[in-house]
Amino acid sequence: MPMARTNSGRSGELLVELRRDAGVPLHRQVETAIRDGIRSGRLRIGTALPPTRTLAADLGVSRGVVVEAYEQLGAEGYLTSRTGGYTQVAIGQDTAPPRARPAVAPAPRIDFGYGRADVSSFPRAAWLRSVRRVLTETPDGRFGYLDGRGVPELHEALAGYLNRVRGTSATPQDIVITNGFAQGIALLIGLLAKAGAKRVAVEDPSADDDARVVAAEAGLEVVGVPVDGDGIRTEVLDRIEADALILTPSHQWPTGGVLSAESRADVLEWAGRTGALIVEDDYDAEYRYDRAPIGSMQGLAPDRVVYAGTASKTLAPGLRLGWFVVPRHLVDDLAAAKVLADRGSPVIDQLTFADFLSRGEFDRHLRRMRPVYRRRRDALLAALRERLPDLRPAGVAAGMHLVAWLPPELDEREVVEGAARRGVGVYGVGPYRLSADGPGGLVFGYATLDERRIGEGIELLAAAIADG
Amino acid sequence: MPMARTNSGRSGELLVELRRDAGVPLHRQVETAIRDGIRSGRLRIGTALPPTRTLAADLGVSRGVVVEAYEQLGAEGYLTSRTGGYTQVAIGQDTAPPRARPAVAPAPRIDFGYGRADVSSFPRAAWLRSVRRVLTETPDGRFGYLDGRGVPELHEALAGYLNRVRGTSATPQDIVITNGFAQGIALLIGLLAKAGAKRVAVEDPSADDDARVVAAEAGLEVVGVPVDGDGIRTEVLDRIEADALILTPSHQWPTGGVLSAESRADVLEWAGRTGALIVEDDYDAEYRYDRAPIGSMQGLAPDRVVYAGTASKTLAPGLRLGWFVVPRHLVDDLAAAKVLADRGSPVIDQLTFADFLSRGEFDRHLRRMRPVYRRRRDALLAALRERLPDLRPAGVAAGMHLVAWLPPELDEREVVEGAARRGVGVYGVGPYRLSADGPGGLVFGYATLDERRIGEGIELLAAAIADG
Repeated sequence: MPMARTNSGRSGELLVELRRDAGVPLHRQVETAIRDGIRSGRLRIGTALPPTRTLAADLGVSRGVVVEAYEQLGAEGYLTSRTGGYTQVAIGQDTAPPRARPAVAPAPRIDFGYGRADVSSFPRAAWLRSVRRVLTETPDGRFGYLDGRGVPELHEALAGYLNRVRGTSATPQDIVITNGFAQGIALLIGLLAKAGAKRVAVEDPSADDDARVVAAEAGLEVVGVPVDGDGIRTEVLDRIEADALILTPSHQWPTGGVLSAESRADVLEWAGRTGALIVEDDYDAEYRYDRAPIGSMQGLAPDRVVYAGTASKTLAPGLRLGWFVVPRHLVDDLAAAKVLADRGSPVIDQLTFADFLSRGEFDRHLRRMRPVYRRRRDALLAALRERLPDLRPAGVAAGMHLVAWLPPELDEREVVEGAARRGVGVYGVGPYRLSADGPGGLVFGYATLDERRIGEGIELLAAAIADG
Repeated sequence: MPMARTNSGRSGELLVELRRDAGVPLHRQVETAIRDGIRSGRLRIGTALPPTRTLAADLGVSRGVVVEAYEQLGAEGYLTSRTGGYTQVAIGQDTAPPRARPAVAPAPRIDFGYGRADVSSFPRAAWLRSVRRVLTETPDGRFGYLDGRGVPELHEALAGYLNRVRGTSATPQDIVITNGFAQGIALLIGLLAKAGAKRVAVEDPSADDDARVVAAEAGLEVVGVPVDGDGIRTEVLDRIEADALILTPSHQWPTGGVLSAESRADVLEWAGRTGALIVEDDYDAEYRYDRAPIGSMQGLAPDRVVYAGTASKTLAPGLRLGWFVVPRHLVDDLAAAKVLADRGSPVIDQLTFADFLSRGEFDRHLRRMRPVYRRRRDALLAALRERLPDLRPAGVAAGMHLVAWLPPELDEREVVEGAARRGVGVYGVGPYRLSADGPGGLVFGYATLDERRIGEGIELLAAAIADG
């Protein structure tokens, strides 16, 4: 072994080896060992050293020995004291060769990126209160290994919330907690593939990540069902043979259409006839502005429909919290797949979200954000009306993005590129199509931009289009 | 849609529909709607109702209307007020048919279960301090979508910690954060399978979950390399053709052997010659008692060895925090697999652990636990020596479990079953073998039992064996 060893069998440290018979003062030996570690690159810049008390006890020396060594090395510039009372390595360099990084376009100055909550509004204080309660009140045993379905508290809280707000028909036993929509859909598609599925149908256009990528990786064929202003054209379903259909019926992504009651009935009739599973991706259901909320399809046919929700759009993607309400015959298989994938989602996060939901904090947060997003949407619509009256906004009644259809004379890609040159990020519908063709359109996310920047962005976009 | 709708297009609630022209007082309408929801089972027992202020604003009525309705329903027993100021549905029943549950043996009264940290020692207060700092200080943008590798703060903190304590040779760029060892090994095996791997070698005996299950699921052949008192018998490697070898060199699971310096060199030589990847599962490296710590194999050959660590054994399995230090050519592939699997581990957990590490809290926690586990181990060894002197303990110098080999006249399964009948959980080595045969032995986890219960457990075990 090339590492120095401690003189104490009780220590987990490989940092310092002391020789009491060496005739060199102990503090000097500690100093030298650390200095050599830093010089050799083994102790990297930023590395936190053990607290003096800890290292002293590990080495079986008085604390003063370690304090003196740290002070000497601090004076020499090797170490630095940080607030919070810990000591870091202050010098050194990353000796790793620089790694090739994919070329990335510079971030646009004003970015109508979509699918993001305004994370600057993440309810930090309320979340922290929930974490504190969880860490104070949770019995010890709960921090052990987990159930693949998740914690019962969160199942209860979500079943209550979803039945109340989204019109689902969920019992706590039907819910599987996942690391966001991404993991849930990956596990579900994995189950389908294992069961012999051959083909997954998705909306065309639809999100080009998660489901489509995972299905292709699993060797499934991905087919598109064309979308018009009201979601998928259900008359096409008769020609489609698929093991599952993934839908965004409440607010089609990206076109914003809402699937009508008649179309929902058609979809469920088709599913009943063909045995296909419907996956209802209810990604932004919480934000409605001008119309009554539409209940979930799952509530109509809990044995045919998987309902999927996420905290990414309402709280923050970084939480990685998603929930799948699944037909009873799939619950155990999905939970087993989750166990195999990662043995369950982190318990403190799950319990925190359960507390946050149960105490009405989630309702409060949504209520606070709804008028904020609505104002941003209104500012975007007003700016488009004023500066770009030829664009035709759609899907505006809900969510955190809208699509604006381009008049035939404007080329989608040219508009996107022209905007990018002026520092404005807008995104074409084209890349989300499975079929080769369709009208040009721009997707505008508005959740993370204030009204002033929205106006500024549309002004720049209009100038880019005028320049052609 | 079967759900009632609100009269407010701005609301996300599907709870109550008010008619101002109905001639029925508004508070009575709210009451009726909620009562009907509870009676119909749509609002389940335990469901949290929105705060009165929120519901009133959603419905466009004064708060008093909602308060009066809640009070009436509270008086009728439908609702109940909970501390924290929220209101829950108080009655109803789960109308779901009872689900079949696998039959589970009653939990043993004294359980020498292994592989578990003592979660009752989870450092709640220090962890909460780190969460608070993260929620207070983290810039907004960090709560958005994540990198598949994890957050840089945690890469830095882990590289520093592992290089210092485990003798790894890691730069922050080499580390991928996963939801525990389980997820990391599943992703890694998935990568190997995709790259055309056919065979994975594991220790025999070894853990029968995670790697072995995932490899079999991925269609890989799993072959065993026999283990003696010092870990795998490396002279066997010459006969083994495998794409990867998964090892626990610091403390073989379950037999407790430590792979010698010579054997490590043999393994690395074999890997260099055959191109096999070594996976070093360093699951309980933090706890050493009677000997100097052995540095990681990864430090000897960072381009051949994947180093895997976990917080499950040191802090709590429920955290789902693991880390993989991988050869540079695999980093991007593993990160991409992680993105596809779940788009990255939860950010607050990652940042919290980074803070916890950087401030020396992890060192402090390990230092506090080491003597606790050592005392439990000593109590177990003393009890075995006194009550069951024919059993031969091994692998005792480290970790949170030991194995005790049985004399030939005792049958492993009979001993395990006899112990279970007396309420003592001990576990045979047999179920972890890939080969049919080998000496009988018992695995004793001692991390979660205090000295008194350890003594009691061994006494009961001795009585069970005497009854034989």
